[in-house]
Amino acid sequence: MPNPAPVAVAHAADRLIDAVERVGAPVCVGLDPVLDRVPASLRTAHSDPVAAIEAFAAGVIEAVATSVPCVKFQSACYERYGPPGVAALRRGLALAHERGLVTVLDVKRGDIDVSAEHYAEAAFGDGSVDWVTVSPYLGADGMEPFLRNPTYGAFALVRTSNRGGDALQSLRLDDGRCVCDAVADLVDHLGRGAIGSAGYSNLGAVVGATKPEDAARLRDRMPHAIFLVPGLGAQGAGVDDVLGCFHADGRGALITASRSVIYAFDDGGEWTVAVRDAAKRMRDEIASVLAQPR
Amino acid sequence: MPNPAPVAVAHAADRLIDAVERVGAPVCVGLDPVLDRVPASLRTAHSDPVAAIEAFAAGVIEAVATSVPCVKFQSACYERYGPPGVAALRRGLALAHERGLVTVLDVKRGDIDVSAEHYAEAAFGDGSVDWVTVSPYLGADGMEPFLRNPTYGAFALVRTSNRGGDALQSLRLDDGRCVCDAVADLVDHLGRGAIGSAGYSNLGAVVGATKPEDAARLRDRMPHAIFLVPGLGAQGAGVDDVLGCFHADGRGALITASRSVIYAFDDGGEWTVAVRDAAKRMRDEIASVLAQPR
Repeated sequence: MPNPAPVAVAHAADRLIDAVERVGAPVCVGLDPVLDRVPASLRTAHSDPVAAIEAFAAGVIEAVATSVPCVKFQSACYERYGPPGVAALRRGLALAHERGLVTVLDVKRGDIDVSAEHYAEAAFGDGSVDWVTVSPYLGADGMEPFLRNPTYGAFALVRTSNRGGDALQSLRLDDGRCVCDAVADLVDHLGRGAIGSAGYSNLGAVVGATKPEDAARLRDRMPHAIFLVPGLGAQGAGVDDVLGCFHADGRGALITASRSVIYAFDDGGEWTVAVRDAAKRMRDEIASVLAQPR
Repeated sequence: MPNPAPVAVAHAADRLIDAVERVGAPVCVGLDPVLDRVPASLRTAHSDPVAAIEAFAAGVIEAVATSVPCVKFQSACYERYGPPGVAALRRGLALAHERGLVTVLDVKRGDIDVSAEHYAEAAFGDGSVDWVTVSPYLGADGMEPFLRNPTYGAFALVRTSNRGGDALQSLRLDDGRCVCDAVADLVDHLGRGAIGSAGYSNLGAVVGATKPEDAARLRDRMPHAIFLVPGLGAQGAGVDDVLGCFHADGRGALITASRSVIYAFDDGGEWTVAVRDAAKRMRDEIASVLAQPR
């Protein structure tokens, strides 16, 4: 399938920065569809859980496509249904691309050698995924295979939004850095080989909105990395918590929210309207915070 | 599909220890099938790459089923072919189980909350997988969901066999531990809640054979963890390098080799005979090293 890239530039980071500027806010809607939370009308219409989830994701994509630049698919929600789930995931990614959205596939893969190459092929092979998430635990070997084609990019986990991540990521090294600082330095070093014309690298970083005390320091350590920032809304972070993830010019981060947007309906009204409005609210809120003088 | 467990015990670690003792050697054959290296006869017989890989994996399983206790499937090799690849992977796992082999699915997943639960369901849901590999970067949140059913277990990446892993795993903390020691302590702590009657936990650890200088120290830090030990053969480690992964009684580790066994043929002879003989040689070599007084 040819890649219907949202804009006519090849480099993944350039394309993402461009998409954010066209929409006017660096936001991403996370598609983590769980059957129990899909609107009742879709569960009634589709007895097959994969069909219900696919219809829900398609409705969310149509509802948000004109108000956000990017969507992120949580692979686990689809993989749990085996091959039919994976097929539905790929159709959802293709639909998002057709609607002009930049796509992130949240797979958190981490392997080496030919296995990493296989995972890159699995993610990028059909041209419907622009970015993936990757784990840094195996070092550069696990990330570099995702950077070989400049059309695609990867966000490495640096500082995750969950509480349990502290047990490893916050540990102090003997040189004064935290473990997440060391990972940031590795990401910065590797990513310098993949910088596009906008000054950003195809190797980005996941930095949780729930860790504002680390964000500014990590921003300094990885000046060329786009931050993918989860944790807003359902995970407890507020819009002010994400400011440290941005450069002073308001660039350099992409704020992603899942549950607070895609489940922003009650089962009485028109659910797609509620989702559309929640995405617009999030977009406007982030744009407004970034517009304030700092 | 009901779980045709190799022996009639429920706890995953008990079942693995039992399978190893029945065969007489703690070895595992890694199935990392790559089309280019599949025997020419299979590539001629199957024009579809997934069918060729599936036939190859089935041939390896039949060839090694009576001489080793366990096989490990590399998920990436199948995922690269999309839904048909995932379907072939599940059929391969089911076949291995039918032949009485303990199965490890090497997926290195690492996510949190409901996503981790989804990945556990994706791996274990049809009963054909006994163990998975998981990434520790997100902390206990990313591993605990794989331990909720005592029938199944997980090997956490602690010290990987690749060179690039040193960039993070070898860093020194301010308390004197390495990063991999801290991960080991986390694995030990979490795994103590999942110890079976043989004294081993359903949370094991991946410790590369290429890191013999770390093995004995990690063995002490995680007394209840079964070590899954890759890196023998093609990655350069020899049989003596794995000794530190075992307790003094010769228990506690599972040595896994992939390329040196499954590609042990040249395209002239009967490839399944060459693979069978390579698996037996590996089994005998490990058994012999463990039988020597230490």
